Amino acid sequence: MPAPDRPAPRDCLAPGVPTVGMVGAGQLARMTAQAAIGLGIGFRILADSPDDSAAQVWAATKLGDYRSAADLRAFAAGCDVLTFDHEHVPGDHLAALEQAGVKVRPGAAALRLTQDKLVMRERLTGLGIACPRFAPVTGTAAVQEFAAGSWPVVLKAVSGGYDGKGVWVCESAAQAADVLRQGAGLAFLAEEYVEFTRELAVLAACSPHRQGAVYPVVQTVQRDGICREVIAPAPGLSPGRAAQAAELALRIAAAFGVTGLLAVELFETPAGLLVNELAMRPHNCGHWTIDGARTSQFEQHLRAVLDLPLGSPALAAPATAMANVLGGDDDGDIYDRYIHVMAADPTVKVHMYGKQVRPGRKIGHITITADHDHHDPKELADRARRAASYLRWGKEDGH
Amino acid sequence: MPAPDRPAPRDCLAPGVPTVGMVGAGQLARMTAQAAIGLGIGFRILADSPDDSAAQVWAATKLGDYRSAADLRAFAAGCDVLTFDHEHVPGDHLAALEQAGVKVRPGAAALRLTQDKLVMRERLTGLGIACPRFAPVTGTAAVQEFAAGSWPVVLKAVSGGYDGKGVWVCESAAQAADVLRQGAGLAFLAEEYVEFTRELAVLAACSPHRQGAVYPVVQTVQRDGICREVIAPAPGLSPGRAAQAAELALRIAAAFGVTGLLAVELFETPAGLLVNELAMRPHNCGHWTIDGARTSQFEQHLRAVLDLPLGSPALAAPATAMANVLGGDDDGDIYDRYIHVMAADPTVKVHMYGKQVRPGRKIGHITITADHDHHDPKELADRARRAASYLRWGKEDGH
Repeated sequence: MPAPDRPAPRDCLAPGVPTVGMVGAGQLARMTAQAAIGLGIGFRILADSPDDSAAQVWAATKLGDYRSAADLRAFAAGCDVLTFDHEHVPGDHLAALEQAGVKVRPGAAALRLTQDKLVMRERLTGLGIACPRFAPVTGTAAVQEFAAGSWPVVLKAVSGGYDGKGVWVCESAAQAADVLRQGAGLAFLAEEYVEFTRELAVLAACSPHRQGAVYPVVQTVQRDGICREVIAPAPGLSPGRAAQAAELALRIAAAFGVTGLLAVELFETPAGLLVNELAMRPHNCGHWTIDGARTSQFEQHLRAVLDLPLGSPALAAPATAMANVLGGDDDGDIYDRYIHVMAADPTVKVHMYGKQVRPGRKIGHITITADHDHHDPKELADRARRAASYLRWGKEDGH
Repeated sequence: MPAPDRPAPRDCLAPGVPTVGMVGAGQLARMTAQAAIGLGIGFRILADSPDDSAAQVWAATKLGDYRSAADLRAFAAGCDVLTFDHEHVPGDHLAALEQAGVKVRPGAAALRLTQDKLVMRERLTGLGIACPRFAPVTGTAAVQEFAAGSWPVVLKAVSGGYDGKGVWVCESAAQAADVLRQGAGLAFLAEEYVEFTRELAVLAACSPHRQGAVYPVVQTVQRDGICREVIAPAPGLSPGRAAQAAELALRIAAAFGVTGLLAVELFETPAGLLVNELAMRPHNCGHWTIDGARTSQFEQHLRAVLDLPLGSPALAAPATAMANVLGGDDDGDIYDRYIHVMAADPTVKVHMYGKQVRPGRKIGHITITADHDHHDPKELADRARRAASYLRWGKEDGH
């Protein structure tokens, strides 16, 4: 089908209504666009390609390279606030934009911590926040010393990675040597392999006014390094530990000067909570909020970076399960499978990202919210997982 | 600020994923676009102007005239299904599109009933469905005969109207004469003025497969002919009357062959329910469903016209109140007022339409959903009304 012709969109905002520019046009920008429609604010996207998930739908999309200082400057010139759907914008460019007076939210200093896993861990440890034991490593001998005979050990690229990965679980020194060899030129850190009870995540929002809001703590299930499921709230979490997680998120946000969302991925262990990773943007662990919370994380991020009063992060349903839809081997039948999923369960909420199907790629997510009178979080998660699996494979027992 | 330059959007849909074209780019199309993002279907809009509410945000917007057969044909050529955000497309054009094989949903025959209030009432009466007493009138004498000494009498333009109005409540023969004189050339019908207890509305969806789904019956409050508030579900409605309203909507949808949404506006009287008006599109009485139902009316309309399985119309919260935001005298302070409303109540959901403020024009709506443990529909409606009033006037006691 030919693309429709349309003129460049014009600004029709009432006086004083601000415009947020988001660098990056993936599914996070796409879902932020949904929230921007409701808020009625100005919203612009900087995309690599017109095929990007958000660029497909959003009128005020500009093409440009987030690695180019000139493209970033030109984009920022039309916006009151600059924010991000990924953490790959070079730190020097962010600092230069701030110097030039652009409101970069979160700011360059905070974002730098998401680009350097070593500095981030050192800062966390400095705050007295528990993390897995870690050390910078520059060769196999250092990894062996770190392991002290106890494998597996986790290797992480301090920044970036290769083959689309930045984390490797190594069962032996030979495997570690292989990772280091393939990643020659990258800086690495070694991290203890944590025998966690489960993984949790907590999502907070902070505004420039330093208003804070924390969503209920969720349980996440990762497989092959990809978030597969989220249950909100985390079933059976003790009130004390939930409060501890919330306090942790607000403390990190304050210490690091985060503006916007902060997602904190946690390991729950018998000994307590350990911080695994941080992100300063809408995050997969918060997709459930579109259907399951009073304020979606995407709306909350916009409110936070605009310094608007934050929305209520309260649950809108007693429980919500989210399952990511990954690409299968073939997208030829996806619409048939989609019909099947909707017919099988009229309460399923489907969120598709408009992305080309590639095996293992996140192409959408499913949420199911519980009724007040009847909810078993496990049953809810099973239903979400079955729907996501059917969309991927055309069967409910796919993995 | 200069408009961003962007290329024409390209289609990136997986094989088999269909495209819906919506004629009209008002707030209904804007909110349908939000739903289309989640569903991941193709969605295109035919707009009069790039400043239209939906055209401001949606990439796949084409400019064209809905009164032009050629523009409609060109637009339909890129779409699998054609639907509408208003009922003003000339019936002959719709019939011609159908003849040419375009899937027009709802169809030309059904839409004709929304364009001719007289035929619609005759059809309803033929089905044995209670309406206010009505008669076509061609002059003041006929109105006087219809009134038989009992005023007020309601005059309605059979199609269209003037000065943006199509309904007039006349207190006397002199007032009726004035309406008829100003509307010279229009066909009119007279209708009894119903002393209703309250106004209700019921929203149903029907697919080409004839699957049907009905939302809970709501109470609506109109002022000066404009919907001002909706409370869902209608407080204190007897289960019998709720079932009767739902049955009525499904019966009308079946008899008229409606595909997509059907909104039925009702008068509740001590003697029972009377049908006041019908619409075959997303409707103001269903805006609450974005925040308060499992499936929003906008998603439901897309699912229905695509013949997808319908979503659950169940309540997502025990009660939801919606209040329309009308334009005040001045939009210079609207963003300050907006901040105040968010600060005053973090559970308020603001939905703005990106429309230029004109006194009395619908420029947005507010919804508030109740918690499970605590809800008083009247208190909920008061809160929504106060927020909407503040956005309009900068004070909570505006009218």
